[in-house]
Amino acid sequence: MEQCKDLTPEQAACLVKDWDNILILSHQKPDGDTLGSGLALLWGLQWLGKTARLECSDGFPQRFSFLYEGLDLENQPAFQPEHVVAVDIADTQLLGESTQCWENQVELCVDHHPSNTRYAQNLVLDSKAAGTVELIYAMLLELGVPIEGKTAEALYTGLTTDTGCFRYSNVTARTHFIAGKLIEAGVDHFPIDKLMFETKTPARLKLEQLVLETLEYAFDGRLALLVVSRKAMEETGVPDADADGLAAIPRQIAGVEVGVTLKEKDENTYRVSLRTNQYINASQVCAQLGGGGHPRAAGCTLHGTLPEVKAQLLEALAPELRRCQEQGCHG
Amino acid sequence: MEQCKDLTPEQAACLVKDWDNILILSHQKPDGDTLGSGLALLWGLQWLGKTARLECSDGFPQRFSFLYEGLDLENQPAFQPEHVVAVDIADTQLLGESTQCWENQVELCVDHHPSNTRYAQNLVLDSKAAGTVELIYAMLLELGVPIEGKTAEALYTGLTTDTGCFRYSNVTARTHFIAGKLIEAGVDHFPIDKLMFETKTPARLKLEQLVLETLEYAFDGRLALLVVSRKAMEETGVPDADADGLAAIPRQIAGVEVGVTLKEKDENTYRVSLRTNQYINASQVCAQLGGGGHPRAAGCTLHGTLPEVKAQLLEALAPELRRCQEQGCHG
Repeated sequence: MEQCKDLTPEQAACLVKDWDNILILSHQKPDGDTLGSGLALLWGLQWLGKTARLECSDGFPQRFSFLYEGLDLENQPAFQPEHVVAVDIADTQLLGESTQCWENQVELCVDHHPSNTRYAQNLVLDSKAAGTVELIYAMLLELGVPIEGKTAEALYTGLTTDTGCFRYSNVTARTHFIAGKLIEAGVDHFPIDKLMFETKTPARLKLEQLVLETLEYAFDGRLALLVVSRKAMEETGVPDADADGLAAIPRQIAGVEVGVTLKEKDENTYRVSLRTNQYINASQVCAQLGGGGHPRAAGCTLHGTLPEVKAQLLEALAPELRRCQEQGCHG
Repeated sequence: MEQCKDLTPEQAACLVKDWDNILILSHQKPDGDTLGSGLALLWGLQWLGKTARLECSDGFPQRFSFLYEGLDLENQPAFQPEHVVAVDIADTQLLGESTQCWENQVELCVDHHPSNTRYAQNLVLDSKAAGTVELIYAMLLELGVPIEGKTAEALYTGLTTDTGCFRYSNVTARTHFIAGKLIEAGVDHFPIDKLMFETKTPARLKLEQLVLETLEYAFDGRLALLVVSRKAMEETGVPDADADGLAAIPRQIAGVEVGVTLKEKDENTYRVSLRTNQYINASQVCAQLGGGGHPRAAGCTLHGTLPEVKAQLLEALAPELRRCQEQGCHG
């Protein structure tokens, strides 16, 4: 296997400049950043006259349909890809079923996850970028693609969704400068932010109520834990993708350093979301448990009954939380 | 009375350059914008070697204490003001009791409210500014004041609080450009945004869960109604002021045009909060019931048992909601 070569966004722009028949891949369970990055790059390449398409194992969610209005993502040009680009995909395991076949053929990966496994031949990795869209923005600038209309909207959506509307600690001056440029280019940010952050379906709100009933605390209120059961998901009929935001709830509680959300996937299988405030490295804790992510937001999958899974998790978190207790640190 | 003269922020900077002994006024019930503007201007003028102080009729709230850490706002220099500046104050009625005495002596007002009554001798008014801090920022730049440290934090706090963390429709490209500059100057935005927007007490979250259990819909999901019982308030011990935000919940539901929150005050007395999205005038409906407010947020007080109060309210809302049903309008 060749070594993975590090590129700047500008060098990546030079690389793709001569390509054609390009397949762009977004990660499974697509979010605003992987879709915004994929769509902006797709339209940029098409504007340059290239043949390209965007694929995602889990399809394109209804929640983001405003992004690709008028574009039939299910009926994109069929061609044998000559080049494969992965956007916002830290690990080939995140490709998902239908695009897994490309795992050894990714020629360029553009990403901001520090946990990136360097599976691609060329890698633009900037873990200081709040979203992968920041890097796609720099690439499109270098390619001379006009950043306006749907392209600007896609980039804005990636920025705002990956930062909780410019709220998370990953936001830098650059994030705001790009947001300003995108609004200057005509993005009407308000309906996007309203849809992404202020609108909840009745089913989602019902799910929130059911899930809040499971809230429990440990380590003098430094840890808060929510359980999202399959029963609650079935009872409310909330699609999987719409339940992701629940993971933000426990960390919002005053005094909480670690917010944990346990989502029941199958019998005795739980998907763990870990969010931390300032003292504990979520990525390191999840790495111990076979997962990964960012320092303040990471995840892993655990097996066992609910009490067993909670015990595993508390054991992994205990040394850090005890340190917080001893030092009097609160979230 | 002299006429009110319109100035740009740069012209206002020229004006204050030669002043000394300056009193700065923030409005009553101070928010992040009036305090952030006042503090940044105060420190800017002091950096220039001038004697200045900031006053607010309602004092300086605990919630914003991070802004003036180490500064004793209660014991500022005493001097006979030669010049009075009002920041973010649309009308002298908003001065409040202890600073009302200055209402006819405001030499400069810096504001972004379109409803400004032009009470000052000189007025910097830009209703396109998301916060008054955008205009203070421009003034300080012109004055050559270094925008860093607590000054930058104060300006950032004004920006983020007046825009719901860059979410509201008042955000422009300029808002983001200034935010970027302030972060570049060293503002650690995350703890500020977390404190202003993300922190809920465990009791408040418990109240949310209890209140969500009461959620009901009418008119094909166009109306959503929450009840905040005295029992839930007592059980959770949430202070009255902390419960106000609950009224925002029902309107956030997809498809809802009218969000109603009924807060039990006494036996058979309910305080009604009405929030609407785009088709129904909340102020008109509440006026029929003896209340009032804004077109999208209004209130009234109703008497009777809970079913009686709901019936009164539905009767007042029914004609408008039926119209929405007939026209197929959703919130």
